[in-house]
Amino acid sequence: MANHLRIELEKLKTNLLSLSSEVERALNKAVLSVRNSDTELAKEVLAADHVIDQHEVEVEEQCLAILALHQPVAKDLRFVIAVLKINNDLERIGDLAVNISERTIFLKKQPPIEIPFDFVNMSQKAVTMLKKSLDAFINMDLRLAHKVWESDDEIDEMNRQVYDKVYSTIKSHPNQVEALIHYLSISRHLERIGDYATNICEDVIYMAEGKIVRHTPEGA
Amino acid sequence: MANHLRIELEKLKTNLLSLSSEVERALNKAVLSVRNSDTELAKEVLAADHVIDQHEVEVEEQCLAILALHQPVAKDLRFVIAVLKINNDLERIGDLAVNISERTIFLKKQPPIEIPFDFVNMSQKAVTMLKKSLDAFINMDLRLAHKVWESDDEIDEMNRQVYDKVYSTIKSHPNQVEALIHYLSISRHLERIGDYATNICEDVIYMAEGKIVRHTPEGA
Repeated sequence: MANHLRIELEKLKTNLLSLSSEVERALNKAVLSVRNSDTELAKEVLAADHVIDQHEVEVEEQCLAILALHQPVAKDLRFVIAVLKINNDLERIGDLAVNISERTIFLKKQPPIEIPFDFVNMSQKAVTMLKKSLDAFINMDLRLAHKVWESDDEIDEMNRQVYDKVYSTIKSHPNQVEALIHYLSISRHLERIGDYATNICEDVIYMAEGKIVRHTPEGA
Repeated sequence: MANHLRIELEKLKTNLLSLSSEVERALNKAVLSVRNSDTELAKEVLAADHVIDQHEVEVEEQCLAILALHQPVAKDLRFVIAVLKINNDLERIGDLAVNISERTIFLKKQPPIEIPFDFVNMSQKAVTMLKKSLDAFINMDLRLAHKVWESDDEIDEMNRQVYDKVYSTIKSHPNQVEALIHYLSISRHLERIGDYATNICEDVIYMAEGKIVRHTPEGA
């Protein structure tokens, strides 16, 4: 029985990693679609979202089957619950990649304007946070999980600065309001991806230490 | 053993309901703070958020203890997993009540402007969706769960209309941009509360029918 459980947990991990690759791919494409005003790429993200949705349902059903059939305890139980939560968050990151891609499609219909913030820097930050949070999960790397968790402040601050920049740009160019608010949404979506990566790190910490760190001050 | 499980599941339900009351109270206060520009009320929401956070951690620990000690299967297992997810969503609704309250505090510092949408109507819609989704959970009322789930489109559409209104108002009054974008955020937060209420209904449907309805077209 214990061996069967081991095999099932290994399969579950592989399945979650395959979902995370799909989500990372969607996010990379969404970011690139903004950079290059590439609506074809944006449409690819929209078209592939149902694969991520379906995959999330499968991982959840796999978790429930393991709980029902193998009744894991202690560390194994915490692992399954962490996978349930990470799975949920990955699907929501997939939705944000869709939202970003929809902005690309909308923006293409507007007169082009300069992106009102350092998009390359901020999007790289979000992509890196997601990648590192998943690496922390794969390698059960607690040091990395804590590091990503503590770095969430940086992307929050970037997003705050985008608000200020958008306010002042709208005042001088009120006719650009639609495009500017869409770029503001993109910044907000990137910031929320940072939040989800932070959640994933919290789940990794919980899984490894059995300690719930969320709702405690970052870096405390 | 089965009787112990029954008692523990009943306690879990009571605990989740107590959390949901706290979250409903926070949301009602947040909405009222916007309506009356009442920063004192807004600050009460901010000050009470740690109670919700702590409560969420307790419910999650209770779920894990039940899974580890009683190893529920079938309907009972689905119930515990649904509580885990509803718990998570309630805490996030609590965060949105905080975000709305923060906007009240910010808006109080700005020259007052008219709210650029029917706030009473939209906020009542969000509050009602949350209330009904929790009623559906308490009474395991599938008809109600499906009804709330199908009504999410309405609040989405309201939010889309707010965007259009804000664009046109900013063009005629660019100096009101900060206040207008804060009202836009409030509308978006209300729309996301509708999404979370929809998620709760999906969990109720899953719990009762064992059927995962999310990612299928609403009303299908």
